[in-house]
Amino acid sequence: MKHISVLGSTGSIGTQTLDVVRNNPELKIAALAAGGNIKLLEQQIREFRPEKACVWAEEKALELRSAVSDLNVEILSGMDGLIEISTMESVEVLVTAIVGMIGIRPTIEAIKAGKDIALANKETLVTAGHIIMPLAKEHGVRILPVDSEHSAIFQSLKGEDPEKISRILLTASGGPFRGRTMDQLKEIQVEDALKHPNWVMGRKITIDSATLVNKGLEVMEAKWLFDVDLDRIEVVVHPQSVIHSMVEFVDGGIIAQLGTPDMKLPIQYALFYPERRFLGGERLDFAKLSQLTFEQPDKVNFPGLQLAFEASAAGGSMPTVYNAANELAVSKFLDRKIRFLEIPEIISCCMSEHKIVQNPSVEEILETEKTTYELIESRW
Amino acid sequence: MKHISVLGSTGSIGTQTLDVVRNNPELKIAALAAGGNIKLLEQQIREFRPEKACVWAEEKALELRSAVSDLNVEILSGMDGLIEISTMESVEVLVTAIVGMIGIRPTIEAIKAGKDIALANKETLVTAGHIIMPLAKEHGVRILPVDSEHSAIFQSLKGEDPEKISRILLTASGGPFRGRTMDQLKEIQVEDALKHPNWVMGRKITIDSATLVNKGLEVMEAKWLFDVDLDRIEVVVHPQSVIHSMVEFVDGGIIAQLGTPDMKLPIQYALFYPERRFLGGERLDFAKLSQLTFEQPDKVNFPGLQLAFEASAAGGSMPTVYNAANELAVSKFLDRKIRFLEIPEIISCCMSEHKIVQNPSVEEILETEKTTYELIESRW
Repeated sequence: MKHISVLGSTGSIGTQTLDVVRNNPELKIAALAAGGNIKLLEQQIREFRPEKACVWAEEKALELRSAVSDLNVEILSGMDGLIEISTMESVEVLVTAIVGMIGIRPTIEAIKAGKDIALANKETLVTAGHIIMPLAKEHGVRILPVDSEHSAIFQSLKGEDPEKISRILLTASGGPFRGRTMDQLKEIQVEDALKHPNWVMGRKITIDSATLVNKGLEVMEAKWLFDVDLDRIEVVVHPQSVIHSMVEFVDGGIIAQLGTPDMKLPIQYALFYPERRFLGGERLDFAKLSQLTFEQPDKVNFPGLQLAFEASAAGGSMPTVYNAANELAVSKFLDRKIRFLEIPEIISCCMSEHKIVQNPSVEEILETEKTTYELIESRW
Repeated sequence: MKHISVLGSTGSIGTQTLDVVRNNPELKIAALAAGGNIKLLEQQIREFRPEKACVWAEEKALELRSAVSDLNVEILSGMDGLIEISTMESVEVLVTAIVGMIGIRPTIEAIKAGKDIALANKETLVTAGHIIMPLAKEHGVRILPVDSEHSAIFQSLKGEDPEKISRILLTASGGPFRGRTMDQLKEIQVEDALKHPNWVMGRKITIDSATLVNKGLEVMEAKWLFDVDLDRIEVVVHPQSVIHSMVEFVDGGIIAQLGTPDMKLPIQYALFYPERRFLGGERLDFAKLSQLTFEQPDKVNFPGLQLAFEASAAGGSMPTVYNAANELAVSKFLDRKIRFLEIPEIISCCMSEHKIVQNPSVEEILETEKTTYELIESRW
């Protein structure tokens, strides 16, 4: 029996993680944490019977406590609660499907407590990769990617010597606006940007996919996860999203992972790594696939990708600025307060005004996030 | 220093094996064997300075002996010679790039002597897989595929549990006549059939590629190499030959190997397995690839493939009949004695007249080959 805690259990990755648990009697939910959706969290508690659960706000925790008073479950709140459920003795793997920098501290504490991390929180490595990866190594824990692309790279590297990687080929669907020019992107509405061609995901990541910022964040993550230089990570636009990513080795051979767009595969792969287990669902039918196409990413009309390479190359606290500026800009776009093309403009502006802190501590990362938010709020 | 013997050093795979040796100072040629091209063999002996070399006919051996009398090399001939160079104490890997059933006995003796086999001789597993695979297991030696498709499967399986294979997806270019009907195939000339769209190969294998018999033989080999049932091997036509083959696992995930059509990669991979080494040459450029397409194989107009599945399912000596009938039929087609469509007709006819010998010995395999040849010679 493998005990897991899930941070962000009511989100897209969280609910699919629970689908995987539902299909694998060897998995046991030790604890769940959610932001504010206590109605769904209550259902999950009733179904999976965790020892502990956590919601962010104490008033919500109070509400939930009374709702599940018939059950033997401890309801926690805030950062202390997140850290408590991330470090419980019974837990073997922590699934970090929580969104935002809020995931960093619980991840660090879980690593220190020797838990493997099934990583679905982008901010962790983007902003704190320089802290997380050495810490994981020190404590002998695994950072298991849950993201489809990184899982594909991780799967392609199985049994291979990482020293023999020549390039990482990170595939990108190109998003719903692939092929459009800046001029055509000016009038994009929220509804247009929320229609992703291949994957059903949360709202924020869907916008990030439309701006290619999502791919930019993935480039930064890949750099840390697989310990490769930025110039050996190549983004390949592949609109059908059938090849989930690839690795080229020094002999020119390329290993790729392909599949249907089902997040349960990378989730299950991370939870049982290195073992593969049966997973039901649709299989790729090559007779029906007809064709797979490839093209170079358009860094001119989608500057969000280029900015990611620049932020990552600059290093230090700059990726935090990139991420925080994007987060708030996307939120403003979803609230119809800014236009689509202002998202990369805001990121670029914040980056150019930032004074880099080298090797930032968690406090400095959070401080950088705060000052980035303040800058944006003061101008837009 | 890794010592290798190469059977069939003057053929397409043989010369490319020597290219690999040329680029890897850690490889040392212990012995070379060729059919009749003693001019090229002499050059190879002068360059690689093997201890021993072998040609099939004793008169050719005499000629070669006098040509290289200034060198310290022992020139052997016949089956005894092949076996001697396959079992030399210094040899670690035997490359079986020899064409035809002549490769079976030296391979068996090499396995018994504990040599790893870099297998490029199709007949070995097609006709004697039931002898070779258990023998390799008994002696703890590796059967390392050199064929591009099988190497791709082998690479895709690295680090994976073979028990978790759900399907092997063997890609096929479809050959130069893909999309044609039987009616259009009637008048195919030798020149047409020798034009392969993607790979430069020997004449016999190029014809086999046009009839899809080559893919049929590969299906049979895959069955033995990877120990999977026939119904879990699927042929996928992929005209661009960029994906060299794939493996689907029980979780629905597919791992594929991709690359340029350079046989030096699978050869080098086999020689240094499990290590990958640098290999120069062109790299896949996804921006230039534009598209990869897939379709089902046409077993109606290309019955050679369907017959392979039938021969393999029938088992025993039937695959030997399939292989021998094809070999002689192709030779007659290349000599312009039969038409293109008579190749599968001859295979089918020989198969339907054959009385299967279960679990045939090497002698029975060779006897089956002989009687198949005799049947064809008496009728065509």
